[in-house]
Amino acid sequence: MSEQLDAYRVAQQPYYRPVADEVELFEAAYSVRMPMMLKGPTGCGKTRFVEHMAWKLNKPLITVACNEDMTASDLVGRFLLDANGTRWQDGPLATAARHGAICYLDEVVEARQDTTVVIHPLTDNRRVLPLEKKGELVKAHPDFQIVISYNPGYQSLMKDLKQSTKQRFGGLDFNYPEHAVEAEIVAHETGVSADVAGKLVGIAERARNLKGHGLDEGISTRMLIYAGSLIAQGVAAQAACRVALVRPITDDPDMRDALDAAVATFF
Amino acid sequence: MSEQLDAYRVAQQPYYRPVADEVELFEAAYSVRMPMMLKGPTGCGKTRFVEHMAWKLNKPLITVACNEDMTASDLVGRFLLDANGTRWQDGPLATAARHGAICYLDEVVEARQDTTVVIHPLTDNRRVLPLEKKGELVKAHPDFQIVISYNPGYQSLMKDLKQSTKQRFGGLDFNYPEHAVEAEIVAHETGVSADVAGKLVGIAERARNLKGHGLDEGISTRMLIYAGSLIAQGVAAQAACRVALVRPITDDPDMRDALDAAVATFF
Amino acid sequence: MSEQLDAYRVAQQPYYRPVADEVELFEAAYSVRMPMMLKGPTGCGKTRFVEHMAWKLNKPLITVACNEDMTASDLVGRFLLDANGTRWQDGPLATAARHGAICYLDEVVEARQDTTVVIHPLTDNRRVLPLEKKGELVKAHPDFQIVISYNPGYQSLMKDLKQSTKQRFGGLDFNYPEHAVEAEIVAHETGVSADVAGKLVGIAERARNLKGHGLDEGISTRMLIYAGSLIAQGVAAQAACRVALVRPITDDPDMRDALDAAVATFF
Amino acid sequence: MSEQLDAYRVAQQPYYRPVADEVELFEAAYSVRMPMMLKGPTGCGKTRFVEHMAWKLNKPLITVACNEDMTASDLVGRFLLDANGTRWQDGPLATAARHGAICYLDEVVEARQDTTVVIHPLTDNRRVLPLEKKGELVKAHPDFQIVISYNPGYQSLMKDLKQSTKQRFGGLDFNYPEHAVEAEIVAHETGVSADVAGKLVGIAERARNLKGHGLDEGISTRMLIYAGSLIAQGVAAQAACRVALVRPITDDPDMRDALDAAVATFF
Amino acid sequence: MSEQLDAYRVAQQPYYRPVADEVELFEAAYSVRMPMMLKGPTGCGKTRFVEHMAWKLNKPLITVACNEDMTASDLVGRFLLDANGTRWQDGPLATAARHGAICYLDEVVEARQDTTVVIHPLTDNRRVLPLEKKGELVKAHPDFQIVISYNPGYQSLMKDLKQSTKQRFGGLDFNYPEHAVEAEIVAHETGVSADVAGKLVGIAERARNLKGHGLDEGISTRMLIYAGSLIAQGVAAQAACRVALVRPITDDPDMRDALDAAVATFF
Amino acid sequence: MSEQLDAYRVAQQPYYRPVADEVELFEAAYSVRMPMMLKGPTGCGKTRFVEHMAWKLNKPLITVACNEDMTASDLVGRFLLDANGTRWQDGPLATAARHGAICYLDEVVEARQDTTVVIHPLTDNRRVLPLEKKGELVKAHPDFQIVISYNPGYQSLMKDLKQSTKQRFGGLDFNYPEHAVEAEIVAHETGVSADVAGKLVGIAERARNLKGHGLDEGISTRMLIYAGSLIAQGVAAQAACRVALVRPITDDPDMRDALDAAVATFF
Repeated sequence: MSEQLDAYRVAQQPYYRPVADEVELFEAAYSVRMPMMLKGPTGCGKTRFVEHMAWKLNKPLITVACNEDMTASDLVGRFLLDANGTRWQDGPLATAARHGAICYLDEVVEARQDTTVVIHPLTDNRRVLPLEKKGELVKAHPDFQIVISYNPGYQSLMKDLKQSTKQRFGGLDFNYPEHAVEAEIVAHETGVSADVAGKLVGIAERARNLKGHGLDEGISTRMLIYAGSLIAQGVAAQAACRVALVRPITDDPDMRDALDAAVATFF
Repeated sequence: MSEQLDAYRVAQQPYYRPVADEVELFEAAYSVRMPMMLKGPTGCGKTRFVEHMAWKLNKPLITVACNEDMTASDLVGRFLLDANGTRWQDGPLATAARHGAICYLDEVVEARQDTTVVIHPLTDNRRVLPLEKKGELVKAHPDFQIVISYNPGYQSLMKDLKQSTKQRFGGLDFNYPEHAVEAEIVAHETGVSADVAGKLVGIAERARNLKGHGLDEGISTRMLIYAGSLIAQGVAAQAACRVALVRPITDDPDMRDALDAAVATFF
Repeated sequence: MSEQLDAYRVAQQPYYRPVADEVELFEAAYSVRMPMMLKGPTGCGKTRFVEHMAWKLNKPLITVACNEDMTASDLVGRFLLDANGTRWQDGPLATAARHGAICYLDEVVEARQDTTVVIHPLTDNRRVLPLEKKGELVKAHPDFQIVISYNPGYQSLMKDLKQSTKQRFGGLDFNYPEHAVEAEIVAHETGVSADVAGKLVGIAERARNLKGHGLDEGISTRMLIYAGSLIAQGVAAQAACRVALVRPITDDPDMRDALDAAVATFF
Repeated sequence: MSEQLDAYRVAQQPYYRPVADEVELFEAAYSVRMPMMLKGPTGCGKTRFVEHMAWKLNKPLITVACNEDMTASDLVGRFLLDANGTRWQDGPLATAARHGAICYLDEVVEARQDTTVVIHPLTDNRRVLPLEKKGELVKAHPDFQIVISYNPGYQSLMKDLKQSTKQRFGGLDFNYPEHAVEAEIVAHETGVSADVAGKLVGIAERARNLKGHGLDEGISTRMLIYAGSLIAQGVAAQAACRVALVRPITDDPDMRDALDAAVATFF
Repeated sequence: MSEQLDAYRVAQQPYYRPVADEVELFEAAYSVRMPMMLKGPTGCGKTRFVEHMAWKLNKPLITVACNEDMTASDLVGRFLLDANGTRWQDGPLATAARHGAICYLDEVVEARQDTTVVIHPLTDNRRVLPLEKKGELVKAHPDFQIVISYNPGYQSLMKDLKQSTKQRFGGLDFNYPEHAVEAEIVAHETGVSADVAGKLVGIAERARNLKGHGLDEGISTRMLIYAGSLIAQGVAAQAACRVALVRPITDDPDMRDALDAAVATFF
Repeated sequence: MSEQLDAYRVAQQPYYRPVADEVELFEAAYSVRMPMMLKGPTGCGKTRFVEHMAWKLNKPLITVACNEDMTASDLVGRFLLDANGTRWQDGPLATAARHGAICYLDEVVEARQDTTVVIHPLTDNRRVLPLEKKGELVKAHPDFQIVISYNPGYQSLMKDLKQSTKQRFGGLDFNYPEHAVEAEIVAHETGVSADVAGKLVGIAERARNLKGHGLDEGISTRMLIYAGSLIAQGVAAQAACRVALVRPITDDPDMRDALDAAVATFF
């Protein structure tokens, strides 16, 4: 592995609490360098899982937050103007492929559907990346693996991965952890007591039941950690929940009342 | 904090009249560097509040007025051509993250939905900003915080923040102040008497009741300050209200008559 | 005020015939640097009014004819390539703000709605213009004022100012002048007799009554001045009216006959 | 007048056969530099008329064929990269305004509606052209005049001049000439006999009656000249009419039969 | 004629089998440099005809395959960056006009409708091409002629030539040749026997009858030549027809069966 | 063949198991350099087939994964800025045509329909590629052949090849292999036993029957190879099938249950 990737090493072990056999399956997938696709709702820990696996496998991790304006050049690289003319600069995907990192394309459905086509030659047995503008064919480093994530709840007619892309990946499902596990996570990350953490999880569970009945998304683990952090700072629990759990997810007055009532039940 | 941010220091204490516990909640949020989202109608004081908090926390403030043409590069930075080739220039978000400012994205829903994805890595526990074009991973300065604002009244199917963005922020609601507080603000900012200020607020309150019944928006505190300024300049109150309160918000003749009549009731 | 603005000084007093108290109101607004918005139909004298006020206030005037392709950079400025690399060039808005001119954005609704967001920081108490690409925060010169104009008749769902923009401006309404005033203007500008000028205004008044009944717009003062100029050149009155008043505003045969008949009534 | 415009002088008198008083009206309009708008169907002689007037007035003529991709820069000018950095190059409109030519924008409705806004400051009493990118305000040369043309038959909801543009121009209508005049033109331009020219005009008149009844446009004078040219080359009249008159305007078999039959009636 | 066009000379006589008087009509059109428009279905020989005529008239031929992304600059030319600044490079249309070639715009309806406006000044009596970006007015070389082709079957509301463009061209219709002629062409081009060639044409004729009844296009002469070439290589006739005639034009199982059955009738 | 193509040589014989006479037909097509079009579902072996043929014919292979943002320049080439000005760089299509490679455009329907027009001059008897921006006409190397692939299941109104493109290619159909052949392929590629391979194929066959009844695509051979690889790594068969076969192709709970049940039948 090249020193170019030093900045992308995961220095400290990221806290990750396994839910099922996802760690073992990912290790097996990595051993045959199978491209992986992580599915699950916002804020349930997909990114954290990839960081954990990169640390466990001792491989550098290059994360790309995908967006609609991302072009193939943003992934693959481009020529920059230099004092001596143009100079090629690898994009994050080319850097990862050339030097051997795990390349994680976060929220890949945000990217334009056909931009994702550029990853195809890296996902079949060829494992190459053609830099067409440079006229170079990069053979992927043996350590290279590609991982993508997306939220099936966002799927729409306009934004979905093509079947020809999906079929190139193994799939792992993620969801919010069970009550005890999630409370353990919240307590560990914020320093609040197990009791407070449990109450926060209880509020989240009520909100998740409202998903599809007035809420687009439930309250995520990440939001619970925000609320816990405010409480640990001395903010009153109800105010902390209002700021971190209720206000961010809905502007609907009735839904706010329902959620505020749920908060009041616990605190 | 670097001297690069000197121009972004808030030199004098901005006048801000707290309405509830928003100052304390923001301080707690800043202490854990929680990203914050301010919601509320046009001209009710969101921008002033952020300036006040930046002054109170003694942190520089970089404000970005978001618009539909804003690209990720406008936030993150770009290469400029120089006598010696290309030179990287940080955008406002990268400047704030690197040197430790509060970065305030005003009217963030105006930005293209997926441009806002570039702020994601700064809003979770990683607190990094990948400069993909430069191949650099900026670790956020400990002082850095991100604040966004939007007007829920503008929300539409086309323009709304994604749930995966919203969930990364704590939320604070803003609205027009109560009668006495708003009159105090108008008098303080324009120099008109408490009596005149109270009448102006009275007119505004009538107009706000028409919101949704022929008016898209009510008369804001900012508009009252404009009207008060004209009156303080010696303009007759009715003319000042016509120019500063009525003409700007509607071209509908009936609605204008109704508002002019409301003005005549007070002056 | 800098010599950079010499070219934008209004050298000679522009002829302007006040209709009501618009001159005094504008002076008061300028004294508190309130941003102003002029509303009214095409060709009724809005641009002339601004030129007159700039002359009266002895301030330079920078006029920008807005259009749909105008980008924020066209207003704010951009980097140009130079022998020594890139050089920043202020756009008209930055020039006006930096050196102290009145900046007049003509037909502002033509600009893309969100491009107008760049003027926001200049229209509240901050009075700053962030040059984000340059990383500079221009504090507006004390003489700077911003004035916009638009034609409410053009308002449509697609093209209207946002409420958050409108609320940042005081408003003045304009319309075609009364008969005697308009005839005085036409005679003054073209050199035709008061009698001929009065007849031309009479024709215009008939046409304006047809607005909304087959005509999109009435005949404007500017068009009357065109017709008067042709008559002063020796063109027969009927031919002059045909060329300058009737042919430009409609291709509908019936409407043309009606207007030609109106012309024949007077000449 | 500058030598920069030598290439745009009309060297030889263009053949033009006046139909009514359009030559005198244009001369009067030019004497007060009134912007002119020529309306009429395809191929009826508008371009030829402008060339004739430029020759008669002894002014250079710069013609711009408008199209949908034309930007404001294409009209106004742009910076080009040079050995010593950037160099400004006037566009055709700036060249005409600066050095004193008649600028003719052919088929102006093809241009994007708002691109045409850049001509506004040249069409009112200011007669200036702001080169915003260069920061220069060009005062129009006294000889400068602007002329536009369009085909009202093309008007659609998407493509029409804005009223605020139309009102800045005097209007002249054009149509196909009367039988004897058109035959004289065809004979003059192609060398065919008066008899043959008359028959060709006869065919055209029949086709023009079908406009709106299966034909989008009639047969234009220009097409008759093409047919006459082929006949003068020795091509059989029926074949010449098939190639030059019938095949170009319709692919509909019935309409072709009708037009072929009309041809057979005459030849 | 300049040596710049040497590469565009048609070195060897292209095989072309006239169907009617199209060769003579094109020669007459060229003698008066009338712009020509060739209409007809895919693969019926339009391109071959133009090559044949260029060879016969001994003029160089510049062919441009039009596409939707073609800009006016692609036809006219652009500035390129050079060691000494910018250098102008003529596009194919400017090259042809300046040095005297036949310029053939293949499938011109694919180009954006208004891009085709740039050819207008070359198609009327002016015969000029304004290089607006360069500020040059190219007078067309006496040998220059413009030829366009299109497939009327593709005409749609979105893609059709404007009448003002069509009227600038003479028209020639093309279609598949008669049985004997087409068989002669297939035999000549592939080397198969007259018997095999006749059978291939027979299959094509059956398929052409299905156009509009399940097939978008019939089997073209070009496809027959492909099939014949495979047969001449020793491929079995049924397999050759399957690969070259049936699979390319339809994915519909029933239609494939019908076409395969037609093949079996002959072979 | 030039050394520029060395990187594109297929070094080792790619494993390919013929299904019918496709190898012979492709050889015959190559012998007359007929452009070829491969049709078939995702992951059935089209790309592998082309690699096999390139190896068998001993020709270099340049593969281009097509996408919606691909411009003609991406295929043909562009000017790059160099220390000495601009330098032309051939795109993959120009490289293949100039030096003699098989150029394989994978998933060509993803490219913008009219971008594919640039390949037309290479697919008829001219076999040339005009580099319009460079003003060069590349004559194709005798070894050059063009091959395209697409998945008819993706065909839609928006995305389909034009008939005028399709007719320039011979066509070969591909599909999933028969049971025994596919099991042989899976066993060969993964090292699992014939028994396990047969079970995997059995699962795939059940899933393929659900295509169109809740599944957009069936399970491809490539996915079976992924599943086999995991099993060969020691992952339990059911978990391997869940990760590699079921999760990637559907998020629908019922469909997942059906597929999981099918897996349980075999393992």
